[in-house]
Amino acid sequence: MVTIKDIARACDLSPTSISLILNNRPNRLSEETKKRVKETAERLNFRPNQIAVGLVTGHTHTIGLILPDVSNLFFASIALEIEKKAAKYGFSLILGNTNDSGVSDILYLNMFLDKGVDGIIFLRSSHLSKIEENTIKNIIINCPKPVVLVDRYFTSVTNLIYTIDQIAGGYMATKHLLELGHKKIGCLIGSKQLVNTKERIIGYKKALLEYEIPFDPSLIIEGNYHLESGVKAFPLFMEKKVSAIFAFNDMMAFGLYQAARNENIKIPDELSIIGFDDNIFSTVLDVPLTSVYQQTEQMAKDATSALINLINGDAEKDKGAKYMPVLISRKSTGRVKITH
Amino acid sequence: MVTIKDIARACDLSPTSISLILNNRPNRLSEETKKRVKETAERLNFRPNQIAVGLVTGHTHTIGLILPDVSNLFFASIALEIEKKAAKYGFSLILGNTNDSGVSDILYLNMFLDKGVDGIIFLRSSHLSKIEENTIKNIIINCPKPVVLVDRYFTSVTNLIYTIDQIAGGYMATKHLLELGHKKIGCLIGSKQLVNTKERIIGYKKALLEYEIPFDPSLIIEGNYHLESGVKAFPLFMEKKVSAIFAFNDMMAFGLYQAARNENIKIPDELSIIGFDDNIFSTVLDVPLTSVYQQTEQMAKDATSALINLINGDAEKDKGAKYMPVLISRKSTGRVKITH
Repeated sequence: MVTIKDIARACDLSPTSISLILNNRPNRLSEETKKRVKETAERLNFRPNQIAVGLVTGHTHTIGLILPDVSNLFFASIALEIEKKAAKYGFSLILGNTNDSGVSDILYLNMFLDKGVDGIIFLRSSHLSKIEENTIKNIIINCPKPVVLVDRYFTSVTNLIYTIDQIAGGYMATKHLLELGHKKIGCLIGSKQLVNTKERIIGYKKALLEYEIPFDPSLIIEGNYHLESGVKAFPLFMEKKVSAIFAFNDMMAFGLYQAARNENIKIPDELSIIGFDDNIFSTVLDVPLTSVYQQTEQMAKDATSALINLINGDAEKDKGAKYMPVLISRKSTGRVKITH
Repeated sequence: MVTIKDIARACDLSPTSISLILNNRPNRLSEETKKRVKETAERLNFRPNQIAVGLVTGHTHTIGLILPDVSNLFFASIALEIEKKAAKYGFSLILGNTNDSGVSDILYLNMFLDKGVDGIIFLRSSHLSKIEENTIKNIIINCPKPVVLVDRYFTSVTNLIYTIDQIAGGYMATKHLLELGHKKIGCLIGSKQLVNTKERIIGYKKALLEYEIPFDPSLIIEGNYHLESGVKAFPLFMEKKVSAIFAFNDMMAFGLYQAARNENIKIPDELSIIGFDDNIFSTVLDVPLTSVYQQTEQMAKDATSALINLINGDAEKDKGAKYMPVLISRKSTGRVKITH
């Protein structure tokens, strides 16, 4: 690759002079010299190194994306949409997978800032110690570069937040099951530390209250959003004799499916299951999964636009957004048949 | 964020002097000045901007990853493993989704080189015009930074290649069906332009030959690796009265499942299906999918190590690798029952 140094050597000038000329920065060099440098750059097929450009303009046109796990379809769709949107505006995406570890959250935030990213889109980890949470909040609140939060967020931060109305999501899933006559509804939640989880439980309780069903905390089981935690939770729900389960993501619902098949329990005749995310595989199953669709693509696109506006100094344009989830009714939820 | 300029101002020196001192580069400044600068940097809580460091050391500790679609689980797993491995060695990952478009391949290759990445891991697009293919080959062969190919590759390039033995994959899938007595085996392939596709077809033909079954080109249907192309191909295979279908990835196999359910055709009693990739969802299905497992994680890890070795100037250490795929037999393939 031809560098500024090569052009400097070819023109017998200092690299600094070459840089000033090629970046059209103020300089005292003669018009003749400028012309000579530009011609040489062209002749040598010089590509301006964007790192060097970044040093001069203060922008690297790079966005950092920090998320728990890009091989989880929900996060993968978010990553895809952010990357596509960013590319449209000439920004590249640096990716950090935290594997849901708070230490990695902090590590990537610092690393990406050190790398000189222009802004960060941040999806926090599930479990944070108090110190980790405070450190992270401190970084994102005082960050010299804009940080936008997607899906998972913190309370008491001033950053823009793009997420669905989690209370509404929890409410509509539970109400759907109540309308089908279910009274004993298990709830396979995510990390209790996440605001998302807390809010979906609020929605679950709100729906129960409307149907005058007392809240039973023993029907709440914590999973980790992976398929295995659905498999693991299944026998616990069976012990409780629930007639329906609301899983906080489709992956855990798929784990419930797998366990139900092994135990020869028929969905939805013996057990209704509703998921969350509306994963593409929901439709492939023999009994397609009823699920709550999060506006993943829109969320990712809007967050990216907002971040780019902030990078460009337009702090007034965006306010964050809360999207209304949509219940997609399929075959995995049915009228209650067996009463225990 | 505190910059070199801030320290320069605080010390009343030029930014260049500050940079030379903080990066421990040769300089003629006094020991006293050096001490003063380092103390000031510490006092101001200065983080060396890695972009600036990159300019001095010639390394940005960034790897570019170009792939068709990060929301496809196969590519997502590759991205995850590469990012994890790279992070271990202090490298960040810039991600480019090409949406299987050759123009985007070229765009990202150039963009990432302009960004100053230290190396690239490249998974080419399916369909390339002759000009696109030549341009891409030209870029990756003459690239000033190392480029390593994963999964999808070109012939006649000298770059390191990490992929499975595609012929063996095609052979073992077909042989599995032949052993079950199938004679009319449909083949739902990917892009005919990909070496992967061509080689899997060679494996398919090799197995047929062993069982003395003449190759019937009309049983080969081209899909695009998406679920929909499985749905679309299904009636065409039914017209041909095949008793088994070998799909070149699990997503297309899932599309066949969906269509089979709609047509009330029982898997495997009326139709055997085998996939490729061994996607996590294969086990969730009511009839778990038989599939060919590609060594995705190992492939991604080894390619990343090799790229980092090349970046560090060690060109002799790695030779590329061809992994042996593994047939995972589940319930979607069975002995042929209906003969047409």
